[in-house]
Amino acid sequence: MTYIQTVDPAHAFKLLNHGPTVLVSAAHGGKINAMAAAWNMPLDYKPTRIAIVIDKKTYTRELIEASGTFAINVPCKAQTELVVKLGSSSGRSLLDQQPDNKLQAYGVDSFAANEIAAPLISGCVAWLECRIIPEPHIQDSYDLFLADVVAAHADSRVFSEGRWHFDGHDDLRTLHHVAGGFFFSPDDGVAVQR
Amino acid sequence: MTYIQTVDPAHAFKLLNHGPTVLVSAAHGGKINAMAAAWNMPLDYKPTRIAIVIDKKTYTRELIEASGTFAINVPCKAQTELVVKLGSSSGRSLLDQQPDNKLQAYGVDSFAANEIAAPLISGCVAWLECRIIPEPHIQDSYDLFLADVVAAHADSRVFSEGRWHFDGHDDLRTLHHVAGGFFFSPDDGVAVQR
Repeated sequence: MTYIQTVDPAHAFKLLNHGPTVLVSAAHGGKINAMAAAWNMPLDYKPTRIAIVIDKKTYTRELIEASGTFAINVPCKAQTELVVKLGSSSGRSLLDQQPDNKLQAYGVDSFAANEIAAPLISGCVAWLECRIIPEPHIQDSYDLFLADVVAAHADSRVFSEGRWHFDGHDDLRTLHHVAGGFFFSPDDGVAVQR
Repeated sequence: MTYIQTVDPAHAFKLLNHGPTVLVSAAHGGKINAMAAAWNMPLDYKPTRIAIVIDKKTYTRELIEASGTFAINVPCKAQTELVVKLGSSSGRSLLDQQPDNKLQAYGVDSFAANEIAAPLISGCVAWLECRIIPEPHIQDSYDLFLADVVAAHADSRVFSEGRWHFDGHDDLRTLHHVAGGFFFSPDDGVAVQR
């Protein structure tokens, strides 16, 4: 059985609101790649827009610029080693090898997105399908990309009714990169009466 | 005794890398205000630059645009109620009252920044003094501000040698807003050998 459920675009910004480190996947012309990205944030809601920093040197950026789309995958504690691997190796080095893509090279499963070519990474706890809002000046000057979220999905065990709730699912807690392969995960949280 | 120590600008991006919700303070012409902002991220390092979303409707934005500067204050668990109060009230409503600023109205102490007019909020665990990089198009179109970090400070009990370490200081853990006054804080973290 699958726990993957559609997230209302009006709630999709809440997938990133608490600041998780994410995996960015992209595909174009039969090529696929993925990288880690701690520098992301919601930009708007109704509809959800996001902002993310994608370095010029990355192979993923080539595929994003060629396709105009990418996926944000929100990984969890069970995937900590994968996040470090994807964040510290370049898919470009695999271009003349078999397999020629990082996800296959690391034995990572993926599944098809609804609206974009980028694969969605299995085992993550949320996925945002993104279409670039073209802003060439800030892309070139700051490596900063803005995007509309055109579809979103989440693992209903830890995200439902518009919010995260990790209690009882330690391995599914999100990852928040601190530095040098060290990650925090969220505790069970505290509520303030307003 | 104070635990506040200067943070090397080359490490300042690490203050925001794990995705905390922050308080933004600003001052201009004798007026002071502060607001909560979950939508922030590092944009670059060497030197550190940051990106943050500041809604057009906010009084803080008026002061930021008038002064060209603002402070990012990173609040902690002991300040959860303050973050909700600052995030759900407007300083504009106080303009004809005494006290006429939100920090005074809520009895919040602050201290002077080194490089900018904005006050730094006492009891927070890190502070980034920011100078806007003028990008009028994205400010107007997306409420998105880019800034150079011109000075940074942190509470050495929980941030030193370029990284956060909250063990033994539960009340000083950062806050990560989920939705509707519900916040996560970081656990003690996990390291991956690379």
